Amino acid sequence: MKIIIAPDSFKESLTALEAANAIEEGFSAVYPNAEFVKIPMADGGEGTVQSLVDATNGSIIETEVTAPLGNKITAFFGLSGDRKTAFIEMSAASGLHLVPPEKRNPLKTTSFGTGELIGSALEYGVEKIILGIGGSATNDGGVGVLQALGGKFLDGSNQPIGFGGEALQEIAQIDLSALNPRLSKVQFEVACDVNNPLCGENGASAIFGPQKGATPEMVGQLDESLAHFANIVQQQLQLEIKEKAGCGAAGGMGGGLLLLPNVTLKSGVDIVIEATSLAQFVEQADLVITGEGRMDAQSIAGKTPIGVAKVAKQFNKPVIAIVGCLREDYEVVYQYGIDCVFPIIRNLGSLEETLQQGKANLISTAQNIARLCRVV
Amino acid sequence: MKIIIAPDSFKESLTALEAANAIEEGFSAVYPNAEFVKIPMADGGEGTVQSLVDATNGSIIETEVTAPLGNKITAFFGLSGDRKTAFIEMSAASGLHLVPPEKRNPLKTTSFGTGELIGSALEYGVEKIILGIGGSATNDGGVGVLQALGGKFLDGSNQPIGFGGEALQEIAQIDLSALNPRLSKVQFEVACDVNNPLCGENGASAIFGPQKGATPEMVGQLDESLAHFANIVQQQLQLEIKEKAGCGAAGGMGGGLLLLPNVTLKSGVDIVIEATSLAQFVEQADLVITGEGRMDAQSIAGKTPIGVAKVAKQFNKPVIAIVGCLREDYEVVYQYGIDCVFPIIRNLGSLEETLQQGKANLISTAQNIARLCRVV
Repeated sequence: MKIIIAPDSFKESLTALEAANAIEEGFSAVYPNAEFVKIPMADGGEGTVQSLVDATNGSIIETEVTAPLGNKITAFFGLSGDRKTAFIEMSAASGLHLVPPEKRNPLKTTSFGTGELIGSALEYGVEKIILGIGGSATNDGGVGVLQALGGKFLDGSNQPIGFGGEALQEIAQIDLSALNPRLSKVQFEVACDVNNPLCGENGASAIFGPQKGATPEMVGQLDESLAHFANIVQQQLQLEIKEKAGCGAAGGMGGGLLLLPNVTLKSGVDIVIEATSLAQFVEQADLVITGEGRMDAQSIAGKTPIGVAKVAKQFNKPVIAIVGCLREDYEVVYQYGIDCVFPIIRNLGSLEETLQQGKANLISTAQNIARLCRVV
Repeated sequence: MKIIIAPDSFKESLTALEAANAIEEGFSAVYPNAEFVKIPMADGGEGTVQSLVDATNGSIIETEVTAPLGNKITAFFGLSGDRKTAFIEMSAASGLHLVPPEKRNPLKTTSFGTGELIGSALEYGVEKIILGIGGSATNDGGVGVLQALGGKFLDGSNQPIGFGGEALQEIAQIDLSALNPRLSKVQFEVACDVNNPLCGENGASAIFGPQKGATPEMVGQLDESLAHFANIVQQQLQLEIKEKAGCGAAGGMGGGLLLLPNVTLKSGVDIVIEATSLAQFVEQADLVITGEGRMDAQSIAGKTPIGVAKVAKQFNKPVIAIVGCLREDYEVVYQYGIDCVFPIIRNLGSLEETLQQGKANLISTAQNIARLCRVV
């Protein structure tokens, strides 16, 4: 029997690899002779770099970058085992968690550090970059990234504009001639699971600005800044980024990145599925086990287990999900290829205790699932 | 496919019948054409009367009895659907919950009310009485029961002794000639899952007295009273109840009841298994599902799922347990015939919320188990 174990991380409890190991431990207690293939998964959000590093036997590289408010911090990115692909999470350099709540102000915060991470990765000569853009503190249209990679954004006096969403309004000219030349040689995949346009009532500023600290007044100002940026891009680069679906992701990062060569916006889990060659493994399997920290109706919107199930169902394989908790509205996942789902909580306790028991609870649940498989 | 659903109650959340209904609901969503046989189970403890009434399509009878401190209360017992068997829980008439904590005093509390329940049941002409003796407030050696049924316990002045553990010390003579004559025509099964003797360091007073409100001094006094009672029984009735295993159950009730004709002390779950004819149903089944509110290592000591599993394994049937919560040390149940066990908690919440969600969580878990059975 060949069993694919492809869970996401159980947030705050287990990395995807740790979750896969726990599931294997529980299952192998019952099926010691089964063949287990563990593929740590992710959906482009937090933990994606760790999962892809683990899935490819890669490594984590630490490097100093510019945090959203300009101070220096140590961030990281991942390199695949064959060193041909870099895995980057925007939140490592430009994440909201890097800015104290009282200082959150998307007029000022820059994505420059994420650009520095990309620059560092390019120095390794990678052929492909996978970038997750969730959890950002910024609303700068990705201009900070472009600046870090050699893009020039000049004001009416031919001076470089500053950092942050506010400064976009001063852009008079965009000059991409000095962009890092390695960019033209890499395939650049951006994990993007929202369809929001750059501007307007469904745009980056209106929808995501408030959670980054924008007041209603700031939202208006940020929206105008992004519109101005988009207009200049349209005029000078003949590129439409204002209305296109996904351009509003991560404070307009989805739009700004399109100024780089060879960039595609894709579903995060699809990127990970491809990067891990999941389908090739699933095709040979008898059973697929996936999981995540929490499953609910929202899981169908691009979460890992649904992506894994979609692949499994192409080959008609049974899919078992094991999850940290299971919200009442979860049953819709059945329509998306999840055959059955088991939460792992064994006792009531504090959240902290429950997160600590994650490994033991996951092993236990996997073991009982395996035991059930054996007797029926 | 024929599926036996034989759970205990999920205490404070679902009766055994409600639990069985929920499991059926979850399973039948996946296997609508399966045949489900629901057998509400119990282990002789709280909920046993309800389960046996539900299992036999019986009824609950309410009647006024004497509470442990002498006041009158409304208690209940059950009659089987064929009205041939009465189901009684001692705690309904003589339970610790009937005495406010500050008034708990086993020197005074009497089991008289339980005797009245037995007397009421006898009036229905039953052929069998099943009595659960858990949760009592008393340490009176069952003398209260015997008094209510016509037994005479006289002091040195030929006067009837009073109520409670303290009064036993005054017994000079026991006269059972006026016992309710119907007692000789019934089979009387007492659900007794402890092996404690009546007296001594493992006796009723030492082990169970303190939880009923006995101080260390009272424990000594109660132990002497029970020993005196046992000595008189030995002398006048040639019956040994002092050392015999089980006689220490329920404040010596296990011993005192042996003064009645046709009384046997048995494991509670075995009594219920027999009363429900569980084995006959299991023999025809493809799958057995059981459950209880909490499973742990203690479950092997006479709890319902283990009893059910023992029957199922006589016929080599797979046994799935579904439980409210699952303590870390549970795995020993595998050695007792439980093939696999699934806790039903889907989310962290307060105990109250979780108990309220019991039905929904149980349906969900049963459904996912059924879905797993279908795909593997």
